[in-house]
Amino acid sequence: IKVIEIGNTRVDKAGHKHFMAKEIAEQPALLADLIANYIGADNTITLPGDLNFADYDRVLMVACGTGYYACKTAKNWFETVAGMPVEVDVASEYRYREPPVGDRTLALYLSQSGETADTLAALRYTAGKAATIAAIVNVPESSIAREADVVLPIRAGVEVSVASTKAFTNQLAILLMMAAKAAQDRGKILAEGLIDGLRALPGILNVVLDAPDNVQSISRGLAEARDVLFLGRGAVYPIALEGALKLKEISYIHAEGYAAGELKHGPIALVDKHVPVIVLAPRDRLFDKTVSNMQEVLARGGKVVLISDEAGINEFGADAWRTLTLPRVHPTLAPILYTIPVQLLAYHTAVAKGTDVDQPRNLAKSVTVE
Amino acid sequence: IKVIEIGNTRVDKAGHKHFMAKEIAEQPALLADLIANYIGADNTITLPGDLNFADYDRVLMVACGTGYYACKTAKNWFETVAGMPVEVDVASEYRYREPPVGDRTLALYLSQSGETADTLAALRYTAGKAATIAAIVNVPESSIAREADVVLPIRAGVEVSVASTKAFTNQLAILLMMAAKAAQDRGKILAEGLIDGLRALPGILNVVLDAPDNVQSISRGLAEARDVLFLGRGAVYPIALEGALKLKEISYIHAEGYAAGELKHGPIALVDKHVPVIVLAPRDRLFDKTVSNMQEVLARGGKVVLISDEAGINEFGADAWRTLTLPRVHPTLAPILYTIPVQLLAYHTAVAKGTDVDQPRNLAKSVTVE
Repeated sequence: IKVIEIGNTRVDKAGHKHFMAKEIAEQPALLADLIANYIGADNTITLPGDLNFADYDRVLMVACGTGYYACKTAKNWFETVAGMPVEVDVASEYRYREPPVGDRTLALYLSQSGETADTLAALRYTAGKAATIAAIVNVPESSIAREADVVLPIRAGVEVSVASTKAFTNQLAILLMMAAKAAQDRGKILAEGLIDGLRALPGILNVVLDAPDNVQSISRGLAEARDVLFLGRGAVYPIALEGALKLKEISYIHAEGYAAGELKHGPIALVDKHVPVIVLAPRDRLFDKTVSNMQEVLARGGKVVLISDEAGINEFGADAWRTLTLPRVHPTLAPILYTIPVQLLAYHTAVAKGTDVDQPRNLAKSVTVE
Repeated sequence: IKVIEIGNTRVDKAGHKHFMAKEIAEQPALLADLIANYIGADNTITLPGDLNFADYDRVLMVACGTGYYACKTAKNWFETVAGMPVEVDVASEYRYREPPVGDRTLALYLSQSGETADTLAALRYTAGKAATIAAIVNVPESSIAREADVVLPIRAGVEVSVASTKAFTNQLAILLMMAAKAAQDRGKILAEGLIDGLRALPGILNVVLDAPDNVQSISRGLAEARDVLFLGRGAVYPIALEGALKLKEISYIHAEGYAAGELKHGPIALVDKHVPVIVLAPRDRLFDKTVSNMQEVLARGGKVVLISDEAGINEFGADAWRTLTLPRVHPTLAPILYTIPVQLLAYHTAVAKGTDVDQPRNLAKSVTVE
C-alpha cells in the first residue's frame, strides 16, 4: 500500500533530486515559522486551547516510529526543564496494555498524518480517563485531531517522502516549547538563553545544511556497511534511535540505536572493523561519558564517526574514522541540531546505494491499518 | 576486563560443553526452589521486608541489559495483573536525567551481580526520595543489596557464563510473584490458575528442555545469517528484546528485537530473504495481531521462524521457514516459557558458529565501571 495523500496541494521537488532532500532543506524555514507562531516577542509561549501545565501532574505521550522518538526526546525535556514526569509508549503496545491512567494526566498523541490506526486506538482508550487529550499532528483535519480536546499543529506542510524529516523536527520543536511552557506554568526558572537559542536555531540549521561538508563522503563509506550502530546519551539518545531508523528505512542497512551506557551490556560484542559506530556527542554534561564509551569502541577496533562541536572534535576526533563538526548550541537544543546530520547521512547513504529514497520498499507513508 | 567472581564456591560444567548450557538446564530446578521460597502451600505470597504494595502508588524499576528487559516484562505484569503504574529505565540514562521521584514510589533495582555501577548510582539518586528502595540481586552481600531497604534474592546460584540465562528467568519469576502480591495487596482478584500455573511451570520448562526438537537445525540456519529480527507483542515483546540481545552477545549476529506493531513504521524495510524473522506468538489475546504482522513479513519474502503452541503452529505454521512448538501455558506466564527457546537458539547458533560461548569477545560478566 503506497498511497500518498496530498489533497489539493501542489507539490514538487523544487529542484531537488528527491522529496526527502527538499524536505530536509525546508526545515529551517518551517522551524522559524513554527516558533514565531507559538512564541511572542516577549518570549511568552502561547499554546492552543490555553493549555496550562499546572493543571496536570504528569504527561503521557504515545506515538509510533519516528513520532515515538520525538516523545522520548520530550520525556527528557519535560523532566529536566519542567520537573514533570512523563510516560512514553509505542501505540501498538500501549493500546493493549490497559494501563492505569491518572485523572490529572495530560495525554498527548503524535502522528504526522493524524490517521495512524494504533495511535488513534490508544487515544480512544484514554478518552474519559485522562484530564485532557491533546494531539500533535501535521494534518489538522485528521481523525486524531478531531477526537482530541486540544490540537497542536506542527505546520510542516505536506510531507511526501515516506521517511519523515521535517515533521520530526517540528514535532521536536513544539514539544520543547511545551516543556518550556510547563516550566513557566509550574514556577520553574528556564535555563538562561534557551528561548533565545531556540529562536536562533533555524539560522544555525541553515548554516549546517549549506556548509560544504564531508557528509557525502562519509555516506559513501556507510553504504559499504551491512550493520551500523548509533550511540547517544541523555538528550540525544533518542536521536541515535531516529538516526538508525532513518538509515534502516531508506538504505536497508541494519542500523540500531543504543543508549551509549548500554553498550557494555551486550551490543559491544558486535563491534569489529566492519561495523561503523556513529557517536552523537554534544558537549553537554554527559560528553565525557559518551567519549569514554566511544573509546571502548575504538579499543575493540571499531570504526567511529564522531559528531560533535569543534572543541569536541579537536580534543577527541583524532582516533575516529571520520568526524562531523556541528556548531555549539544550548545543550537542551542539541536533539534538534543533531537530527540534521543523521538525516543527511541516511539520505546520502541511500543515494550512494541507489535505493528508492522517497518510496522505500515495504513501507507506506501513513500506517492506517494495525 | 574478564573477571569471574566465584568466591569460594566450586563450579564446574557438570557434563555440559559450556557453562551457558549448564545454566540453561538448571533453570527448572532453580525456578521451583524460588517459587517454594516465596509462595506458601495456601498460595500466600510472602516477600522479604513485609513489602505491602498498598503502601505505594507506583513502582520504578531500573537496571541494565538483560535485567532491563526483565523490568520491561514486569511493567506489563504490574499494570495488567495489579493495575499499578510502573516506570522502567536503563540505569545509565535514569541516573543522569534527574527525574522527579514521588514519595509513594517503590524503587526497585535489578542486578545479577549487585555491583553494576550505573544501577548503584541510580539507586543512590532515589535514596531519600522514594518511599522504599528494593534490590533484586543474585549476590545478597553485594553493594546494591547493602544499600537497599529490602533485598529480594533471586537464588540462582553462581552464574559463570557472561550471557545471563538463569538469573533472567529467576528475575522474571520474582517480579511476577511481586505483581501477584501487588494485586492481592490492592484488592484485585488474581486470574484463575495463575499461581497454580506458576507452580507447574518448572515441570513444563523441563519438558521443553528435554524434548528432542529442531532447535539445533534452526540454529545452523541462523548461523548463516548476518541480521535477525525478533518480534513480539505485549507480554513477550521484552522477550523478543532479550532474544536479540542473547544472540548478539554470543553469536555476534546483529539481532534486533521489535514490538511487532512497530514493524510497519520502519524495520520492515530490512526484510528480505536473507533476514530471518523470529516471531514469538503465544496464543494470548494479541495472537491474531502478531500473526498478521508475521504475514506482512511473509508477503515481503521474509524467512519466518514461528514460535507458538501446537494450535498456533497447526493454523499458521505452514508458510513459516521453520517452527518451534511450545506447550500452552497461562498467557501471563508466557514470557518465562518463551525465554527458553530464545536462549537455546542463541546458544546453538553460537556453537554452530564456533564462538567463545561463555566468554564472548568484548564483554565482561559484571559491568562495575560506567
